[in-house]
Amino acid sequence: MRLDDQQRTRFAEDGFLILQGVFSPEEVEVLRRPLDRLFGEETPANFRERKTGEVRTAMALHLRDETYGRLVRHPRLVEPAVQILGDERLYVQQVKVNAKRAFSGEVWQWHYDFATHHQEDGVPEPLALNLHIFLDDVTAFNGPLYFIRGSHKRGPAPAALDTVTTSYPLWCVDNDTVAERAREGGLVEATGPAGTMLIFGDTLLHASPANMSPWDRRIFSLILNPVANAYTKEQRPDHQHHRDLTPVAVLGDDCLTAAAAA
Amino acid sequence: MRLDDQQRTRFAEDGFLILQGVFSPEEVEVLRRPLDRLFGEETPANFRERKTGEVRTAMALHLRDETYGRLVRHPRLVEPAVQILGDERLYVQQVKVNAKRAFSGEVWQWHYDFATHHQEDGVPEPLALNLHIFLDDVTAFNGPLYFIRGSHKRGPAPAALDTVTTSYPLWCVDNDTVAERAREGGLVEATGPAGTMLIFGDTLLHASPANMSPWDRRIFSLILNPVANAYTKEQRPDHQHHRDLTPVAVLGDDCLTAAAAA
Repeated sequence: MRLDDQQRTRFAEDGFLILQGVFSPEEVEVLRRPLDRLFGEETPANFRERKTGEVRTAMALHLRDETYGRLVRHPRLVEPAVQILGDERLYVQQVKVNAKRAFSGEVWQWHYDFATHHQEDGVPEPLALNLHIFLDDVTAFNGPLYFIRGSHKRGPAPAALDTVTTSYPLWCVDNDTVAERAREGGLVEATGPAGTMLIFGDTLLHASPANMSPWDRRIFSLILNPVANAYTKEQRPDHQHHRDLTPVAVLGDDCLTAAAAA
Repeated sequence: MRLDDQQRTRFAEDGFLILQGVFSPEEVEVLRRPLDRLFGEETPANFRERKTGEVRTAMALHLRDETYGRLVRHPRLVEPAVQILGDERLYVQQVKVNAKRAFSGEVWQWHYDFATHHQEDGVPEPLALNLHIFLDDVTAFNGPLYFIRGSHKRGPAPAALDTVTTSYPLWCVDNDTVAERAREGGLVEATGPAGTMLIFGDTLLHASPANMSPWDRRIFSLILNPVANAYTKEQRPDHQHHRDLTPVAVLGDDCLTAAAAA
């Protein structure tokens, strides 16, 4: 899978791509199958909501499940990342499913990923890409990502660690900066059916609201970062920033369904 | 202003109407002008957010300000209500502006108004109409109302008093009921530019999310109820359910701008 010129231009201008229909319903079903088991595990890699105790984010999935071990090497994730970065040597930095349960899934405040990657992990440059796959239909109502269009162009914004508003510590951006950049670029709601893919960069401002709807919202996220831009601090545990710098090698395009059939 | 047949059919089917462009930018400006003063008043009719202390809802505005005294008699609000109810004798039950401040305005949980009107005020039948005017542009991002289409057809749902999740006590509907009715009718986001009007009935299930955006969201709300269906309990104060049963008499269509010019 290669991005066409229009998609590359849009990514450069907007800071994100929303690509519907990249993964088939059958592939999404394969990806959903292990989730109940993974979410049921007692592990520090499962972060739970403060109020309900439900799993909010389940990390290190490629080390905990064979299907996700294949998914991080999927060509439809890795090849666009290689293409955008112009670098074939990317390592698997983080692998998770963010879940917002019906009626109870909580907010992610305004942030950009590089603030955490730089402050906590000592990543030198904002090159990492965040690749999402919707595992449920994502609508206006069940907690979609909000992007501030073009906010990546202004570079890293000031950020401060928020350990108060949710159970997951996050380097967040102050309201004045969000307001200024939202006035410049506008907000975009990233919605689409299950199987939709998102790509966004390390300095794009984003957030997502609570899920008030009766429908779960699960999104897979893979962060790939150039080996040449690797972490320099080991402050966070391996499940939040993996230490293994082996460049990711792609599998075949049918790697999910072929293995599931076997 | 009269609703046409198509609008009446939609209201009967969906349980709500979203009517853009009913109030002009000049009229909206007249309505915005007194708000800073009204929101600044120390009165039990101003309900404040638990976390920030900002005013969440400012009630009894027609008794506190001349412009709002005219607004509750505005023909574009009263005439459609008379038409829908087939009853000319309606009283002003509640008059407020609900404000969701940028970044901090909080959720309204899933509810329908009749649960409160019946339990707290002893209103016999679910006839009251809630008439809204957007005083700011309402978008996907700043806390729009969510309606469950057609949920009014199932009649009053079971409800329980919630005094925990927000500062405003509200009779709310349980998750199972919301899920069932949402599956039947689907959710609708009530968005539109300032000046948009909403009409919805007393048993329509609705909610609205927190405002994570950098833009305030203020909505005027007038509840009109037939005198023949008046309150039978005086449990809540006058500012939450007015005692004055005088049928509302309409003013001229230019009542807002003419008075402002004078």
